Amino acid sequence: MVIIMEKDASEQQVEHIIERLDEQGFSIHRSTGVDHTLLGVIGDTSRLDIRDMKIMPGVADAYRISAPYKLVSREFNHADTIIKIKDVEIGGNEIVVMAGPCSVESREQTMIIAGHVAKAGAKILRGGAFKPRSSPYSFQGMGEAGLKILREAADKYNMLVITEVMDRDQLDLICEYTDILQVGARNMQNFTLLRNLGKVNKPVFLKRGISATIQEWLMSAEYIVSGGNRNVMMCERGIRTFETYTRNTFDISAIPVIKKLSHLPVLGDPSHATGIRDKVIPMARAAVAAGTDGIMVEVHHDPDHALSDGAQSLYPEQFDQLMDQIRIIAKAIGRKIAERTDS
Amino acid sequence: MVIIMEKDASEQQVEHIIERLDEQGFSIHRSTGVDHTLLGVIGDTSRLDIRDMKIMPGVADAYRISAPYKLVSREFNHADTIIKIKDVEIGGNEIVVMAGPCSVESREQTMIIAGHVAKAGAKILRGGAFKPRSSPYSFQGMGEAGLKILREAADKYNMLVITEVMDRDQLDLICEYTDILQVGARNMQNFTLLRNLGKVNKPVFLKRGISATIQEWLMSAEYIVSGGNRNVMMCERGIRTFETYTRNTFDISAIPVIKKLSHLPVLGDPSHATGIRDKVIPMARAAVAAGTDGIMVEVHHDPDHALSDGAQSLYPEQFDQLMDQIRIIAKAIGRKIAERTDS
Amino acid sequence: MVIIMEKDASEQQVEHIIERLDEQGFSIHRSTGVDHTLLGVIGDTSRLDIRDMKIMPGVADAYRISAPYKLVSREFNHADTIIKIKDVEIGGNEIVVMAGPCSVESREQTMIIAGHVAKAGAKILRGGAFKPRSSPYSFQGMGEAGLKILREAADKYNMLVITEVMDRDQLDLICEYTDILQVGARNMQNFTLLRNLGKVNKPVFLKRGISATIQEWLMSAEYIVSGGNRNVMMCERGIRTFETYTRNTFDISAIPVIKKLSHLPVLGDPSHATGIRDKVIPMARAAVAAGTDGIMVEVHHDPDHALSDGAQSLYPEQFDQLMDQIRIIAKAIGRKIAERTDS
Amino acid sequence: MVIIMEKDASEQQVEHIIERLDEQGFSIHRSTGVDHTLLGVIGDTSRLDIRDMKIMPGVADAYRISAPYKLVSREFNHADTIIKIKDVEIGGNEIVVMAGPCSVESREQTMIIAGHVAKAGAKILRGGAFKPRSSPYSFQGMGEAGLKILREAADKYNMLVITEVMDRDQLDLICEYTDILQVGARNMQNFTLLRNLGKVNKPVFLKRGISATIQEWLMSAEYIVSGGNRNVMMCERGIRTFETYTRNTFDISAIPVIKKLSHLPVLGDPSHATGIRDKVIPMARAAVAAGTDGIMVEVHHDPDHALSDGAQSLYPEQFDQLMDQIRIIAKAIGRKIAERTDS
Repeated sequence: MVIIMEKDASEQQVEHIIERLDEQGFSIHRSTGVDHTLLGVIGDTSRLDIRDMKIMPGVADAYRISAPYKLVSREFNHADTIIKIKDVEIGGNEIVVMAGPCSVESREQTMIIAGHVAKAGAKILRGGAFKPRSSPYSFQGMGEAGLKILREAADKYNMLVITEVMDRDQLDLICEYTDILQVGARNMQNFTLLRNLGKVNKPVFLKRGISATIQEWLMSAEYIVSGGNRNVMMCERGIRTFETYTRNTFDISAIPVIKKLSHLPVLGDPSHATGIRDKVIPMARAAVAAGTDGIMVEVHHDPDHALSDGAQSLYPEQFDQLMDQIRIIAKAIGRKIAERTDS
Repeated sequence: MVIIMEKDASEQQVEHIIERLDEQGFSIHRSTGVDHTLLGVIGDTSRLDIRDMKIMPGVADAYRISAPYKLVSREFNHADTIIKIKDVEIGGNEIVVMAGPCSVESREQTMIIAGHVAKAGAKILRGGAFKPRSSPYSFQGMGEAGLKILREAADKYNMLVITEVMDRDQLDLICEYTDILQVGARNMQNFTLLRNLGKVNKPVFLKRGISATIQEWLMSAEYIVSGGNRNVMMCERGIRTFETYTRNTFDISAIPVIKKLSHLPVLGDPSHATGIRDKVIPMARAAVAAGTDGIMVEVHHDPDHALSDGAQSLYPEQFDQLMDQIRIIAKAIGRKIAERTDS
Repeated sequence: MVIIMEKDASEQQVEHIIERLDEQGFSIHRSTGVDHTLLGVIGDTSRLDIRDMKIMPGVADAYRISAPYKLVSREFNHADTIIKIKDVEIGGNEIVVMAGPCSVESREQTMIIAGHVAKAGAKILRGGAFKPRSSPYSFQGMGEAGLKILREAADKYNMLVITEVMDRDQLDLICEYTDILQVGARNMQNFTLLRNLGKVNKPVFLKRGISATIQEWLMSAEYIVSGGNRNVMMCERGIRTFETYTRNTFDISAIPVIKKLSHLPVLGDPSHATGIRDKVIPMARAAVAAGTDGIMVEVHHDPDHALSDGAQSLYPEQFDQLMDQIRIIAKAIGRKIAERTDS
Repeated sequence: MVIIMEKDASEQQVEHIIERLDEQGFSIHRSTGVDHTLLGVIGDTSRLDIRDMKIMPGVADAYRISAPYKLVSREFNHADTIIKIKDVEIGGNEIVVMAGPCSVESREQTMIIAGHVAKAGAKILRGGAFKPRSSPYSFQGMGEAGLKILREAADKYNMLVITEVMDRDQLDLICEYTDILQVGARNMQNFTLLRNLGKVNKPVFLKRGISATIQEWLMSAEYIVSGGNRNVMMCERGIRTFETYTRNTFDISAIPVIKKLSHLPVLGDPSHATGIRDKVIPMARAAVAAGTDGIMVEVHHDPDHALSDGAQSLYPEQFDQLMDQIRIIAKAIGRKIAERTDS
C-alpha cells in the first residue's frame, strides 16, 4: 500500500500514521518528494481497510499495490490451472461445452436433452435440481430426485454432471451425484457456503455475481482456494447495467481480464447473460472468439413447456449449428472444441 | 398480464397462445383492435415467466398488470404495518434510530458506545457478531461471545438489539440474544435463509441487495411474509452505480417508492451507503427529510482502531449533533424522533 | 502521479520510463522500497494519460496524486464561491429556489406560474425555450418568443431568469434575455459550447451528465472557468443506474462531495432526478437536508396539459407546501431559504 | 399505447382519460376485462409522454406497443440497408475494417500507419482532426491541417476517410475532406448536430452514447434519417457500468439486438470499449463472431509517443494478426472480410 500525504501535511500527521501502522506490525518506507511525502506500507496489507487510511488527517490518497487476492493470482502461479475430471480437462487448450436444461423436470425430458447434446459434442451435462427463484411462488426444483436423473442421464451418455448448490446443508447430498459444484450468481458472496466448498473434494464452478467487480469475484474464489480446494473455475454470466433489452449485459471482456489476472480457467454462460434465445448463439460464438475455456448453454427439446428459463433455451438443432460454428472459431485462435472420444 | 400481438400476427398464432395458456389454467380475454390484438391473461400470472410470452411467434410484447409480490403490497394491506417490540414501534409516526459499532470487538468497546448512543437517543443497539467479509483474511466477528456482549449492553441501557444473521444454521443461536434479525445486502437473495426467517418469531430487517431492483427487494420480503412472518422492515443501504467516489450510491428515492408500493416500514443506512464518515451526517439528514421510518448509523468511540468499517463510523459527538439536527427535520414533516422514555 | 513498478521489474524498465517522462519535461523522484520501486512524477501531469503509464513494461500500477481539475478545486480556492446576480446570492448561507414550467408554452401559462412561484418564495424563474428532446417528433420549444415571455414574467415578479442553451449559436440571443445560462445534462461534455461559455459574462448552471462521474463533471466546469468565466454553479439532476422505477437515481451524496472537492455552489434538481411528481417533494427536502445551495423545481398550474414533463411538475399548492417544509429543514443546519425582500 | 386501469378505477376516471386523449386527436379502443379495463390508444403516440399517462388517476400502468422510432425500424424496412461509398459496401455480406491512429499527429505518422493498415486489409482510414477531450488542457487535434493529411493518406492507399465532427459549424469544412462523418459518443444526443447531419449528403457513423439505451441510440439515428439522410450506421463502443477494470463495458449483445430492431448496419469499436491494447484483439474477434458489419480499430506504429489513446492502439503487427484471425471467424458465420481489390 502506498499512502500519499497532502502537500501541506504536517510532520506530526505523518508520524501519527507511521505509529498507527507500526502498532499493527507493518514496516513503513518513507519517501519525501518535492510536493508530497509518500509512505510505502510493507507487510500483509490485505487485512487493512484502505478507507481507514484515506480519511486519516493529512492523507491525500492511498492505493493498494498488491491485489487483495493471492492464491488465485497469476503472480502466485504463472501456469494455467488445468482441472482434470475423468477424461475432461478444463483450462487447457481444448474448449469445453456444458449443455442441458435449465431445470431437471422429468426423467424423460432429461434423457432426451442429454442424448441430443452429447451427440452434438457436449461433454458435461448441466441441469438444476435445486433452483434459486426470485419468487416464492415459482417452481423450486425436483431436489434429490432430479439429482438421480441427472446422474443417470450423464452416465448413459458418458458425460460429467454439473449442478448448483445453494446452501452448505445440500453439499453432502449433491456431492454424491455431481462431478462439478456450481455456485450461482446470487451466492457468489455467500461466505459460509464458500468456506465449506474449500473443504470439498470436487471442482467448483463459480458464477460471477450480477454486480460483482472482477476483484470481488476473484476474492470469492480466494475463499475457496484458501480453504484447500484449488479446483475453481470462473464463469462470466452477465452483469446488471442500465440496459434492459437483454436480461443482463454479457461482459465478455471479463474473459481476457481474468486470464491475465488469474491462473484459473474462465468460462462463459451466454444463456443467462442474454436471457433471449436468438441472442444466445451470437454471444456464445463471441465468448469463444474472446478466448473462453468453455461455455455453458441451456438447451431444451420443448422450451415452450419448460418449467424455467424456456425463453433462453436453444432448440436442439440450434445447438448443433452453434457447435459447428464454434469449431471453426476455435481454430482461428489455435484452439479446438473438446470432442467425445467415443463418438 | 397483457399480451400484445404484432400487427401482422396470424389467427393461428393467436390461437396457439390461447391454447398454451389455457393448458396452464388461465382464462383469456381477447380484444381485437384496429392494429393489434390484445390478450388479457386472467389467473395467477406470478408463476408465468414473461419472457416466455415475449418470444412466442406473433407476439409484439407482453406486460404484467399485477406486481409479482402480493402480501407485501400496499394493495393487499392499505394501512402501514407497525412493528411493535417492547416499547418501540417501527413504522408509525415516530422515527427510530439504531446505532452502535460495526462489529462487536470487546465488552469494553461495546459498553462505551452503547452508553453514548443511548444517552443521545438511540433506542436500538446495532453490532455485528458474525461478519460477512469479502476477504477470507479479514476479521470475521466474535461469534457467540459478541452476541452476549451486545445483549448485556442493550439491557443495561434499556435498548433493543439488532444483529446480522448470515446463515440459517446461526438462526437459533442468534434468536436467543437479539430482538431484530438483520439480513445483509449480500444475503437478500439467499432464499434458504429467507424461507427460514418466515418461520421465526422475530422481526426481520431486510437490507436491499447492492444491485437489487425495488421489485426484487420486495419479492425477497414476500418470501419471508409468505412463510408466516409479517414483521419485515426494509432498509435502503446504497446501490452499486458507476460513481465510485462514495462506496455506494444512496438511493434515497427508494424510501418514498417503497412507502407507495408496500405497507412495510422502510429505513435507511447512510453509513454503508456512503462509506465515508463526513458524508454520513448529511445523508442521514436527507433520509429523514425523505420520510424514512428510521436510520441505522455506525458509531465508534475510537474509529481509528475499529476492526471493521472505522472509516464510516461517526464519532460520538458527531452522533449527538446528528440527533439534534434530525429532531428539527422530523418536525418539518409532522413526525418526531422516538425518544427514550426513561431519559 | 505515482508509478509503482512490479516486484520483478528490471533496472532497464525503470530507466525506460524515466527517460520517456524526462523527454516530456517531467522530473522524476525515484524511491526504492523492499518490494517495489516507486516513481514520483513531478510537473503538470494533467496532460499525461494515466493508461499510457499503466501499460508500460514493468509497471504494476499508476495513480494520480493531484486531481486533473485545478481552478475549480477547493485546494485552489478555499473560500466558497458566491455568485451575485442583482439581489440574489448563490453559494452563500441562503438557499435559493428556482421554479417554473418545464417549457414556456404561452404567455398566459408562464405568467400564471411565475406569479404563483414568486409569491411562494422562488427568486429565480426557470423555463425552457429551446428544448433538447430525445424524439425528433416531440415539441422543441417556442424559441425566441419563449425567451421574451420568460423575461417579461420574471421582470413583472422581480425574479431572475434561468434558461437552457443547447448550442453556441444560440448564445448571443439567449444572453439578451436570461440572467443565468443553463447547460443540460446531454451537453455537459459539449466542449465547443463549454469553451464558448468561458467567454461569456453570465453565470452558468452546469447540470451533471446522466452518466458523468463527479470528476468528469468538475472537468467540464474547469473548461468554463479556465476560459475566464468563474461564475459556475453545479447541479445534480440524477444519474442513470439499473433502477428504473424512478427516471434517474438522484445522487444526493454528490452534494456534500462537490462541497468538499470544489468551492463552487452546488444545487439539486429533484424534478428531473425522479421524473414522478409525488417523489419530487421528498427528494427536494432531502437535497436541502444534505446541504444544497439551491433547488430547481418544475411547477405547472395545469400539468395534465403541459407540453413536456407534466408528470414531474408540481401543482402550485404542492410547491407552497414544499416551501414551508424546507424553511424548517434549512434551520436544522443553520441556513435559511432566500426570501424576496419585497414580499 | 395500452393503458391499464386499476382494479377499482371509477367510470369517471376512465372517461377523463378518454376525453383527454380525444382532445389530442387519438382514437380509443376500450376493452373491459374481469379485473381491469384496458384502453388501446390509436394514432401517432410517439408524441405522448408515457409518464403523463401513468400518473393519471385510476391508471395502473401504461405501455407503448410501437417503438418511438419508425424510419430506422426493421418493421419499416425489412431489408438491410447497404451503404455504398465508392467501392465499399457497409451492411452487406462483407465485414469492413476501419483502422488508423486515434489522432492525426503529423503527415509522417499518418502516412506510415495508413500504409500499414491498407496493406493488412483495412479499407477505411480513421483519424481525428478535431478531438473531444475531457480536459481543457489536453491535445485538441490538428484541425484542418489534419483533415488534409488524412485525405492525402487515404487517397495514396486507395482508402476511404472517416473522421469525427463535433459541431455543426465544422460540418462544411469536414465534408470537403471526409467520406464518412463520425459522431462521437458524447454527441449522440447533440440534437442540433443531428438535425444538421440529416441534411448532409454523406453517410454518418453514429456512436452509441456511453449511457444510452438501445432505444435512445435508435432515436438519435431517427433524427438523422427523418431529416433526409438515410445512410446511417450504428457503432457500439462500450457503455459505462460499475466495472472499472476496462475503460467501458463492450456491450457486444447490442450487435444482434440492433440487427433485429433496425435495418441499419451496426459496427463495433473495441478500442474505445476496452481502452487497453491487449483486450482489443479478443474483443474485436468477439464482435465479428457476434455478427458485426465492421470494426473500427486504433493502430499506431509508435503508441508510446501517441498524443492520445496510445494505451489502446494496436501495434501494426498486432493488427496483422487480428486480420488473419477474423478472416477465419467470418467464415464460421458465412461472411467474409472486405478485401482491397487492388492488393
